Amino acid sequence: MKVIKSISEMQAYMREKVKEGRVIGFIPTMGYLHEGHQQLMREAKKECDFVVTSIFVNPLQFGPNEDFDRYPRDEHHDLKIAEQEENDILFFPHVNEMYPNEQSVNMTVHKRVNALCGKSRVGHFDGVVTVLAKLFNIVMPDKVYMGMKDAQQVAVVDALIEDYNIPVKLVPVPTVREEDFLAKSSRNVYLNAIEREEAPYLYQGLLHGKSLIEENVEKSPQAVIEAVSHFIKTHTHGKIDYVDVLSYPQLESLEVCRGDMIIAVAVHFEKARLIDNIRVYQ
Amino acid sequence: MKVIKSISEMQAYMREKVKEGRVIGFIPTMGYLHEGHQQLMREAKKECDFVVTSIFVNPLQFGPNEDFDRYPRDEHHDLKIAEQEENDILFFPHVNEMYPNEQSVNMTVHKRVNALCGKSRVGHFDGVVTVLAKLFNIVMPDKVYMGMKDAQQVAVVDALIEDYNIPVKLVPVPTVREEDFLAKSSRNVYLNAIEREEAPYLYQGLLHGKSLIEENVEKSPQAVIEAVSHFIKTHTHGKIDYVDVLSYPQLESLEVCRGDMIIAVAVHFEKARLIDNIRVYQ
Repeated sequence: MKVIKSISEMQAYMREKVKEGRVIGFIPTMGYLHEGHQQLMREAKKECDFVVTSIFVNPLQFGPNEDFDRYPRDEHHDLKIAEQEENDILFFPHVNEMYPNEQSVNMTVHKRVNALCGKSRVGHFDGVVTVLAKLFNIVMPDKVYMGMKDAQQVAVVDALIEDYNIPVKLVPVPTVREEDFLAKSSRNVYLNAIEREEAPYLYQGLLHGKSLIEENVEKSPQAVIEAVSHFIKTHTHGKIDYVDVLSYPQLESLEVCRGDMIIAVAVHFEKARLIDNIRVYQ
Repeated sequence: MKVIKSISEMQAYMREKVKEGRVIGFIPTMGYLHEGHQQLMREAKKECDFVVTSIFVNPLQFGPNEDFDRYPRDEHHDLKIAEQEENDILFFPHVNEMYPNEQSVNMTVHKRVNALCGKSRVGHFDGVVTVLAKLFNIVMPDKVYMGMKDAQQVAVVDALIEDYNIPVKLVPVPTVREEDFLAKSSRNVYLNAIEREEAPYLYQGLLHGKSLIEENVEKSPQAVIEAVSHFIKTHTHGKIDYVDVLSYPQLESLEVCRGDMIIAVAVHFEKARLIDNIRVYQ
C-alpha cells in the first residue's frame, strides 16, 4: 500500500491509473477507521481492481459548536487497517493543501437537508459536498462507497453527483450490525449495560414500521411514526430525537406511504445519541 | 467531426479518449461562433490532439432582465465553423438534459465578482461556474481555452478550478483585434461610422494607462483611472460605464499599482456597450 499526502502527486498518480483502465474504488473517510469502513473497503475490493481510501478530517463540515479539534485521530491504527484491507492507496491530504485559501466558489445544499439530522446541523452537508467534489477531482474514482448508516449523507451525495454529472457511481453499503442487529457505531461503547440491552429495539422498531407499511396495515406516515415511536418508548429508556418516514432519496414528507421510502430514527441515551434507518418500498 | 447531443454518450466517449491518453482541449461556448471562438479552437488545435467545442446557451447565467430567449442561435453556421476549424467533437447538449431538475446543490461565487461587469450582473457567474463544473465532468478536458476579452470570467474560472482541484489547465487566449486594435466583438456592427472611428481609443486608453504604470509616472490606481478616463472622454463620444485598475486574477482594489494587474474599461456607445482590458505587471 502506498501512502500519498500531496494532492498534486495523488492527482498525477490517479490520472495514470485512469489511463491504464483500472476500475477505481474510493472510500472517503475522516479516519479513526472501524468495521463500518472495513465493510466499505471489502465491497470496493470485490468490484474494483484499485482501491483508494482517503483520510481527511474536514473542518468545513463541523459546525461552530461541534468540536473539530477533538475529533478522534489515530494515524497509526488507520494505516494498519487500510493495509490489512489491502487498499492500494491511503490518501492523507493536509488541511492547508486542501483549503489553502478561503474558497471563492461555495457549494450549498438546498434539498434533502431540511430533515433528519440535517435540520440541526446547518451547513454540515455544504462542507460534505465541498470536500467530496474536491476529492472526486483528485482521486477520479469509478465508484464511491458510502455506508447507509448515514442515509441522509448518501442522499445528498447522490444529488451532488447527479447535479454536476460527476462520472462516479455511488454504491450505498448496508449498515453493519452486531449479532443482535444493533447498528455498529463507535458510540455504542458509551451505552451502559441496560442501554446496551435496549438499543437493539431501535432496529426492531424500524422493522415493525416496515412491516406495517409493507403489509398495508398503515398507509399514513404519521401513524407509522407514532407506532415506531411507541415501540421504542415501550422497549427503551432512550429519549427520541426524531422518528420519520420520508421519500428516499428525496427525503420529502409523504401524504401516504408509497414508493421508495426510508424510516429513520435518532434516540438519545444517557451518553450516546444513536441513529438507525431502514429502506422500505411500497 | 462528430456531433454529440447526449450527455451520457459524450461522457462515455470522452472516458475512452482519456484512456487512450489523448490530450483533450475544450472550448465551452454559447454558440453563434465568431472569430474569437475560432482563435480559441486554433490555440487548442496547436496544443492538443483532440479538440471539443460545446455549444450550450446556459439559462443559469442569464439574469431576469437579460433575454435568454432572444440570445442569437445559428446551429447550421456553428456546425460549419466547428467543422472548418477541425474540431473532433461538437457537443450540443439539450437544456432539459443539462438541468433535468432544479439543482439540489448550488454553486455561488463570492470573490472576484464584486467588480467590473460582475457588479451589475448578480448571479451571472454562479451560472457560469455551475455549467462549467458540469461540462468539465462530462468532457474531461486536459486544457480549457477562454478568451481574455472577458478577463473577469477567466479570473472566476481560475478560482473554480483551484477551489475544486479540477484536473484541467486554464489557457487564457489574448483578445483578437481588428487592424486598428479594436477588440473584435459581434457588437461592433452596432457602431455608427463616427463611433467606429472612435472605438479604437478604448485600447489606446488602456495602453496609455499601462505605460503610466510601467514607466512609474503614476503609482496610484486612482490617478491611472482618471488618466485613462480622461483619455477616452477626450477621444470618443462614448459614456464611460467603468474604468478600473485591479489586482489580477483576484480583482481586488489596490493601494498602489504593484504586482499582476488589469486595467479594464466598459464604454456605452449609442447602440453598443464595448469592453476591453489589458494586463499590466509592475
